[in-house]
Amino acid sequence: MNRAALIEQIKTKRSVLCVGLDTDLNKIPQHLLKEEDPIFAFNKAIIDATAPYTVAYKPNIAFYESMGVKGWQSLEKTINYLNENYPEVFTIADAKRGDIGNTSKMYAEAFFNSFEFDSVTVAPYMGIDSVTPFLAFKDKWVILLALTSNEGAFDFQLEENADGEALFETVVKKAQQWATPEQLMFVLGATKTEFLERVRAAAPKSFFLVPGVGAQGGSLRDVLTKATNDDYGVLVNSTRGIIYQSSDENFSEAAASAAQELQTEMASILFD
Amino acid sequence: MNRAALIEQIKTKRSVLCVGLDTDLNKIPQHLLKEEDPIFAFNKAIIDATAPYTVAYKPNIAFYESMGVKGWQSLEKTINYLNENYPEVFTIADAKRGDIGNTSKMYAEAFFNSFEFDSVTVAPYMGIDSVTPFLAFKDKWVILLALTSNEGAFDFQLEENADGEALFETVVKKAQQWATPEQLMFVLGATKTEFLERVRAAAPKSFFLVPGVGAQGGSLRDVLTKATNDDYGVLVNSTRGIIYQSSDENFSEAAASAAQELQTEMASILFD
Repeated sequence: MNRAALIEQIKTKRSVLCVGLDTDLNKIPQHLLKEEDPIFAFNKAIIDATAPYTVAYKPNIAFYESMGVKGWQSLEKTINYLNENYPEVFTIADAKRGDIGNTSKMYAEAFFNSFEFDSVTVAPYMGIDSVTPFLAFKDKWVILLALTSNEGAFDFQLEENADGEALFETVVKKAQQWATPEQLMFVLGATKTEFLERVRAAAPKSFFLVPGVGAQGGSLRDVLTKATNDDYGVLVNSTRGIIYQSSDENFSEAAASAAQELQTEMASILFD
Repeated sequence: MNRAALIEQIKTKRSVLCVGLDTDLNKIPQHLLKEEDPIFAFNKAIIDATAPYTVAYKPNIAFYESMGVKGWQSLEKTINYLNENYPEVFTIADAKRGDIGNTSKMYAEAFFNSFEFDSVTVAPYMGIDSVTPFLAFKDKWVILLALTSNEGAFDFQLEENADGEALFETVVKKAQQWATPEQLMFVLGATKTEFLERVRAAAPKSFFLVPGVGAQGGSLRDVLTKATNDDYGVLVNSTRGIIYQSSDENFSEAAASAAQELQTEMASILFD
């Protein structure tokens, strides 16, 4: 999906909501366990219920990988279902891959050809050749980790060089030499409120994927007032606050309500 | 596998050889394509031929992932075959994962429970909570990226802080506060000869997984004289130099010869 189509969808839905699909057999409603593929049954119901309010879906690949071959089958059904029924939504393989060139090329094959995702999250530690193989695919995106939402972000990402530039800033600056904002986004944790404006300043045109609103404690208002740009420029992820609202038969309605509530708040800040 | 068992095997085989299983349908001998599972057939033949000279096998997960569900089935057969037939060898899932705590826990499930690998490679960018979930598994290992063998290593890994400490050194120092050398190794590229002694100085007791000898240009003698310690302390990986020596019917014999040649050189430097 290209940038223009993503922006168009944001305008149409008046939303920058991304729903995380961290689907866990231990957390989904028990009545789904009798389904042939409970993981896909859950995802399908969540997608159908939340799609009117949602511009992006982000399966967290670890959750599927942890179930071995069966998990990959559930993931395959999920991405195919999204592409067939909601071709307008942006899809993110949250995989945090990153390796030498010939290996990153294989990961690009995995997520852009074998599965047809629009984008994949990539870790920057190994540098340019871990990123460029993904860019060979037209209208496909790399979402590079910059400043993440977790506690461990403080271990290395804020390490400053002799010029007082933090590692996440070096990453954001250097990566923009490798790709344009048409194919490169950055991950920026909502929990790091004091840095939102600094990252926006370092990458004025880029889209940011913003996790950490909700269960992790980040403020939606802060993100939407400090990290946006003229093209909106953010996709705000929510996972636990949406998909695990209820463990009863009504779980998908509960997810729809939670998504609608976030979308309404987004619209009031961004569009009204 | 615990550290004592790994060292014992090194002594028995007089080898620190790790064989990379970057198995690619486009590169394996054509006659294998008629097999039901050509990837597994290739791996099995390579393993049987090289096991006398090899202390560790390292499937590169990207290559399996790029083939979707079928690739994961080939990977499952490969790790099960290794565990059933060569329980003394150390197994490495070269996956370069790394995510927030609840997600790294899922990756640990994937590689230590769903597949029974001894270790997994992890990227350090997201810090402590991307590492610790793997350590909850007894006798399982994290192999953390420190200084990688690729060109992109120069982008961020050598970035110096105000004290002149490079990022890879900060990673090596800090990670040793999270785990002991009984569960933590580091990746150290053989192509970065000038840094071998610096990394050894920063982590005197740790094992290093050393890629980059052979096709990537690193020197085996440099690694074995500059990066070792009293417990040998290195696993030297070779992939293309072993598994793709021949594309004829004799490919496994050719791989065995290449592995034996490396083992002989290792023995002459480390044991004679």
